[in-house]
Amino acid sequence: MGLSLSKLLIGRPVANREAESHKLGVFEGVPAMGLDGLGSASYGPEAALTVLAGTGTAGLAAIGPITWVILALLAILWFSYWQTIATYPNNGGSYFVAKENLGINAGLLAAAALMIDYMLNVAVGISAGIGALTSAIPDLHAYTLSLCLGVLAVLTVANLRGTRESGLAWALPTYTFILGLGGTIAWGVAEFILTGHPQPVIPPPPPAHAAEAVTLWLLLRAFASGCTAMTGVEAVSNGVSAFRDPPVRHAHGTLSAIVIVLALLLLGIASLARAYGITAMDQTQDGYQSVLSQLVGAVYGRGWFYYVTIGSVLAVLCLSANTSFVGFPRLCRLVACDGFLPRGFAIPGRRLVYSVGVLFLTAGSGGLLLAFGGITDRLIPLFAVGAFLSFTMSQAGMAAHWWQANGRSTDDTPARHAPAYANRAKLAINGSGAIATGVALAIILVAKFTEGAWLTIIIIPCTLLLLKAIRRYYDEIDRQLLTGSQRMLDLSPQEPPVALVPIKRWDRLSRNAVAYARGLTPDITALHVTSLEGPDAGEEGSGLKQEWREYVEEPAQRAGVTPPRLVSIPSPFRSVVAPLLKGIAYIETHLPGRRVIVVLPELVEGSWWGYLMHGHRERRLRAKLLRYGGADVAVMSVPWQLRPATPREGIAEEEPTTGPPVADAGSGTGR
Amino acid sequence: MGLSLSKLLIGRPVANREAESHKLGVFEGVPAMGLDGLGSASYGPEAALTVLAGTGTAGLAAIGPITWVILALLAILWFSYWQTIATYPNNGGSYFVAKENLGINAGLLAAAALMIDYMLNVAVGISAGIGALTSAIPDLHAYTLSLCLGVLAVLTVANLRGTRESGLAWALPTYTFILGLGGTIAWGVAEFILTGHPQPVIPPPPPAHAAEAVTLWLLLRAFASGCTAMTGVEAVSNGVSAFRDPPVRHAHGTLSAIVIVLALLLLGIASLARAYGITAMDQTQDGYQSVLSQLVGAVYGRGWFYYVTIGSVLAVLCLSANTSFVGFPRLCRLVACDGFLPRGFAIPGRRLVYSVGVLFLTAGSGGLLLAFGGITDRLIPLFAVGAFLSFTMSQAGMAAHWWQANGRSTDDTPARHAPAYANRAKLAINGSGAIATGVALAIILVAKFTEGAWLTIIIIPCTLLLLKAIRRYYDEIDRQLLTGSQRMLDLSPQEPPVALVPIKRWDRLSRNAVAYARGLTPDITALHVTSLEGPDAGEEGSGLKQEWREYVEEPAQRAGVTPPRLVSIPSPFRSVVAPLLKGIAYIETHLPGRRVIVVLPELVEGSWWGYLMHGHRERRLRAKLLRYGGADVAVMSVPWQLRPATPREGIAEEEPTTGPPVADAGSGTGR
Repeated sequence: MGLSLSKLLIGRPVANREAESHKLGVFEGVPAMGLDGLGSASYGPEAALTVLAGTGTAGLAAIGPITWVILALLAILWFSYWQTIATYPNNGGSYFVAKENLGINAGLLAAAALMIDYMLNVAVGISAGIGALTSAIPDLHAYTLSLCLGVLAVLTVANLRGTRESGLAWALPTYTFILGLGGTIAWGVAEFILTGHPQPVIPPPPPAHAAEAVTLWLLLRAFASGCTAMTGVEAVSNGVSAFRDPPVRHAHGTLSAIVIVLALLLLGIASLARAYGITAMDQTQDGYQSVLSQLVGAVYGRGWFYYVTIGSVLAVLCLSANTSFVGFPRLCRLVACDGFLPRGFAIPGRRLVYSVGVLFLTAGSGGLLLAFGGITDRLIPLFAVGAFLSFTMSQAGMAAHWWQANGRSTDDTPARHAPAYANRAKLAINGSGAIATGVALAIILVAKFTEGAWLTIIIIPCTLLLLKAIRRYYDEIDRQLLTGSQRMLDLSPQEPPVALVPIKRWDRLSRNAVAYARGLTPDITALHVTSLEGPDAGEEGSGLKQEWREYVEEPAQRAGVTPPRLVSIPSPFRSVVAPLLKGIAYIETHLPGRRVIVVLPELVEGSWWGYLMHGHRERRLRAKLLRYGGADVAVMSVPWQLRPATPREGIAEEEPTTGPPVADAGSGTGR
Repeated sequence: MGLSLSKLLIGRPVANREAESHKLGVFEGVPAMGLDGLGSASYGPEAALTVLAGTGTAGLAAIGPITWVILALLAILWFSYWQTIATYPNNGGSYFVAKENLGINAGLLAAAALMIDYMLNVAVGISAGIGALTSAIPDLHAYTLSLCLGVLAVLTVANLRGTRESGLAWALPTYTFILGLGGTIAWGVAEFILTGHPQPVIPPPPPAHAAEAVTLWLLLRAFASGCTAMTGVEAVSNGVSAFRDPPVRHAHGTLSAIVIVLALLLLGIASLARAYGITAMDQTQDGYQSVLSQLVGAVYGRGWFYYVTIGSVLAVLCLSANTSFVGFPRLCRLVACDGFLPRGFAIPGRRLVYSVGVLFLTAGSGGLLLAFGGITDRLIPLFAVGAFLSFTMSQAGMAAHWWQANGRSTDDTPARHAPAYANRAKLAINGSGAIATGVALAIILVAKFTEGAWLTIIIIPCTLLLLKAIRRYYDEIDRQLLTGSQRMLDLSPQEPPVALVPIKRWDRLSRNAVAYARGLTPDITALHVTSLEGPDAGEEGSGLKQEWREYVEEPAQRAGVTPPRLVSIPSPFRSVVAPLLKGIAYIETHLPGRRVIVVLPELVEGSWWGYLMHGHRERRLRAKLLRYGGADVAVMSVPWQLRPATPREGIAEEEPTTGPPVADAGSGTGR
């Protein structure tokens, strides 16, 4: 306790009323929600170029048309999500939109797709960022995986501290990235316009020998890979409630900023890649250079500007994972509130962050990084499927929404005060969005099936089934617990319970427990289990009988009270729980209907090292008794504090107004 | 539960009465207690040869005299421990002997030395065994550390199953080792006698260029390293109580068998090493060959006999660690019974093994293997210090024993019925043993100081201080708990306690808890803590008030009973414990002297996956309440079993007569 490690890492607890000050504006919104979208600019074009790499210069020409198709899709998504944000200002995530308009199964399908997508985004973002780093500093190439996991750890801690602080701390690399890459593109384009045929400062490696022909199949695969450039655009619509008032305006502003900057970057990268003849290299090979590294090197050479820009690319890519850390826990919370995930996902930790979700995301994406060795190329085929499935579900949900609203508005209900023709226009936008993303999804599935997309096709339905199984489990519990008539409190007179007190010896610990039991019932049996130390131990217990007479029976006789009984039972298997359970079974048979209380004397330690000094048999005993004791057995712990503390010491965290609190009793982390 | 992994690995529980059948005779005793002593034959000579390696053929000649000195020491130890076993048939470990005759500090010094020695023995035995393996199969050299840790894991599980089974299973490699190595030596010696100058089948690598001169200092260092060949001889005296009746005769037989075989092996290895010109090689280098591997290769070549013999060397060396697994937990149990180690070390697990000691040994020696990379050479300098310190303490203790017995027998007390002259002879033997081992210890300390012995000189006193600190801690607890007058049970009439029941909603879980509380006291307050879900959650609790009226207050009014109160408290930091502690502080102030019972409704799961589905807030709540609630607060858990079980199901392990038991409730492992 005291100044603990967790306090140092995570920070002091945050009260509910402090929540408002943690909301985002556009300036913090772009780093907090747009890093994924913007970061995609560096791995999206690279992924497309990787597919085209085998075709030499012939394929390089194809990057232009592919980019225009992607930009068209991006524009459709922009309009679509603009509408989503306006329609669902509280919550426009695809889970919610699909659930509301298409039913719970569609919602869960979107949720499952999005969860997988979030995990992959963390893995892809980090591995692409480390790819940028090893391009700049080739000596680090051997440490790719360790570096990836280190970045993941830093991200996790930062996000356990809370969203707003991350948003601010990450504004610097985000805006450096936009300026640096934007500047590179502007310079390169200017040179292109002025000279017509720009000379690279550092020439990129010559394109590989054209081993493949440019086929439609190849173009489709390149398009499917390039679509990863669009992932992350939905983040804003998921997190509208994280914005300051008025949230819709701030969210619209953030969405537009992200889409416009992303479109310009994609266009610029594709043009310059063609102009300078830059192709993708193999990340598993030494000497690997990312496309952006080649690009900046070709335009500027390796001056300070190169290192600043590549540094910001590294930072933005690593932090693009942050979008998932914002989105994933919020999504899980929504799903958990509906009962499809364990309740822990819905409980805010002491920093008002859904810590369980954050840690779950870390575990999942850490597993992905380990399984794929931190190589971006291997992760890309799995990516995009989840993102485009959730795009499609969200757009389809919105289309259904306008369809129904259309139906309603002709009935003259004041359906969101929108005239029918406006609804039809909105239906057209979201409908075309659903169709376009659906077609893209189909292309991605077919083009990437053998490279890994089959895995997501298996995992997404499995996740869906798991979510439904969890809900069934909770429903079953509620069915047991909420049966109407059996909730009536029984007020008929009760016999006092029977108390069993297992004791090792007669000391103040046992005396305390027996004294407590006396306040509850006159029916007390102290149970002394012998033979616990095994056959090598000597005789025991005769001293206890003597002390029992002296300290318990004689004073009871003097006071004219029936004294508690003392019973000694040997336990041939050295188990304490078995004799207790036998005693309980005996009471059940001979005193039917009487409740039983097992009173455990418990030594309470205040320090971790003291904790190591005791056997903690009580805890296992308690768990076994609660499990096997039957419905009429309760277990009571009577403490003896070795270092006495008062209740006030346990609630010091409630007054954080003057400096950090001293103790951290009872933070609300949901575990 | 059910057929658990631990049951599969460790086996069914063993009852106290089954203990007798687990005792050892000489045949099982040699593998169980002598593997350390016998295994030393392979690393002892090698350690001495390693020191001499730099001197070329000149140093090789010195191995003969060094071996004779070591054999003389071994003979003294034989006589000494023979007497120790006869005098302390129940327990002749150096801890006990030194404690009885020289006082508790001497005993603890011996215990600390022995504990360190046991841990080092595990590490050295395993690393030397893997050294033998990588000599035979050089491709495995890169996996040295992983192989070491794997062997450690296997040993741990085998020892958690119990001593006797390990003794039997390991008789085969032990006796193969004795026959294989004995056969090699006999063959080599015969050839030496017949031919005068034997030709090696596979010539050992030529000795290194003589870079050093043979100095006295070098000889002392070689002797100090060679002394590791004697480690493990004391094991029999530590474990006399593990032998079958009559234990002293079985122990004497086992001791003699071990000493004689060990002496013959040492003598044979040293003679043949000289005859064939075998020197030690560097274990960190590829192509490493242990001395035994070179020896068997030189005598026989690499036929099946080579592989069988080296296989048994590997097995015996790895299993020589087993001596520690027998001795260490027994030693820890003795020390724990005296209160110098946590009680858990004295509690036999369900297989009648002191499991905590076994696991502690695994952790310690695993740490050593990791720290030293599994290289025997680096571990040897730390070794032997502990062993010889404990030899010396034990012999000195025996000498003191005879000295005192001498004094007593002149007073004509029937002091062990031994005439004075016999005692004087025994005094002479143990006294010379103490002096000889003491001198050897001094040589080892000086010769090995800079190579690592300084580390043991620091660690042994620190361990001693730790043991004494642990005892002080328990004494302080006893002082608090056993104060005479305050153990009297207070029998004055008590007011009923005040019950606090934290509830989330009104269901059968909460109803159960309130009903239980009603059987104990009329003073019940149900506490509903709100705002737990953070600022994003909606309104709550109004439904609860309505249900409380319907299910609690109205029936109470109909029955003419005062109903329990319902209080709602918001918790701005989303902590459940803080409002409860505030309530307790309030009761302390306004109802002084009244005890408080916090009644926790607890959902009990039977399965591990169900366990993951719940928040387990109750457990943390309970711990915080016991810690900070003060002396007058008890915590009661009222269970609701999702999968009801009866007490009988929890005690099925008690009847293991017909096949393995079904459930493993309450095994006595001391954690």
